[in-house]
Amino acid sequence: MKSYRKELWFEVPRRRELINITPQVKQCLAQSGITEGLLLCNAMHITASVFINDDETGLHQDFEVWLEGLAPEKPYSRYQHNGFEDNADAHLKRTIMGREVVVAVTEGKLDLGPWEQIFYGEFDGKRRKRVLVKIIGE
Amino acid sequence: MKSYRKELWFEVPRRRELINITPQVKQCLAQSGITEGLLLCNAMHITASVFINDDETGLHQDFEVWLEGLAPEKPYSRYQHNGFEDNADAHLKRTIMGREVVVAVTEGKLDLGPWEQIFYGEFDGKRRKRVLVKIIGE
Amino acid sequence: MKSYRKELWFEVPRRRELINITPQVKQCLAQSGITEGLLLCNAMHITASVFINDDETGLHQDFEVWLEGLAPEKPYSRYQHNGFEDNADAHLKRTIMGREVVVAVTEGKLDLGPWEQIFYGEFDGKRRKRVLVKIIGE
Repeated sequence: MKSYRKELWFEVPRRRELINITPQVKQCLAQSGITEGLLLCNAMHITASVFINDDETGLHQDFEVWLEGLAPEKPYSRYQHNGFEDNADAHLKRTIMGREVVVAVTEGKLDLGPWEQIFYGEFDGKRRKRVLVKIIGE
Repeated sequence: MKSYRKELWFEVPRRRELINITPQVKQCLAQSGITEGLLLCNAMHITASVFINDDETGLHQDFEVWLEGLAPEKPYSRYQHNGFEDNADAHLKRTIMGREVVVAVTEGKLDLGPWEQIFYGEFDGKRRKRVLVKIIGE
Repeated sequence: MKSYRKELWFEVPRRRELINITPQVKQCLAQSGITEGLLLCNAMHITASVFINDDETGLHQDFEVWLEGLAPEKPYSRYQHNGFEDNADAHLKRTIMGREVVVAVTEGKLDLGPWEQIFYGEFDGKRRKRVLVKIIGE
């Protein structure tokens, strides 16, 4: 069994942003030399997400509005967590979007459907944060 | 290490439906000959879900009502994504339900709890769509 | 390839509670002798969750309030599932929080970010329930 590990670093200048990281994840897979296996890609921070969806601007605006509806950022006093922090909403938003994806590796490629793209979802940006890519297989 | 891959195809005549796919996933596992490992089962489309819950009709009606409350289908104009599409709600519903499940394989069986059943959740049907089953192990 | 399996049992005296199970999961990893691979940790019951977030009391209160807002426990008659049961809300709450986490195993350790902690989320307690830990690797 082979295994491969890489951290991807991000510093998003805004509080929230969705970034297509499929190219970086493909690079990791190529570097790993693994052709059959499973790839785990997860946010290492609890106010960020890794998820799979469509790379379509309108949809990303819909996600922003929808998540703000389900877990509003303000008023900060709305959340117990916000005594010393102001990011409780980011913990909740990331819960909806998910921490991680597991992707099949087949014949050396990410085994994704036609529109599947991997995203980093930042919900509490303006600081350096990490995503982990771990691949096991042969 | 052994690996196994299979696509399951669905064409749901309605927009939304929950289908118990546990029997098909068990068949995949039997075909694979793998007795210890991990099984990934994921929707290959971004308006569908694979999730684990109870096979109980009342609960499935509750999911329908609940998801419509959290991410209503209509009015279509509610979503930016719906310029050329009408399925933004399906992207959001699938986000709540999740893209994938990872199930342990132990002694040649799906290592599920007593009521755990694997479902395909279709939120934008009336077309052919796929689920991926990937198994790695020994 | 090595594989390891363990069930963790819980009996939560209240209906809902979030329990940090990172120490138990670490113990499993140590027992397994696996140093590189993937660890799956999932609720074996469909009214409970395993998820990763922050071990902070205020945030846990926020989760309680937030989940009650998105999927209220009462009135029980609100849900079709509650003919013979009263736990439909627990199925929905667990759907938001997620069934499982997959964690990378690197150099014999859980490869977690600085604040990542693994939780058992009970949403229908007062009975014995299980979490599965499955590890594969070398």
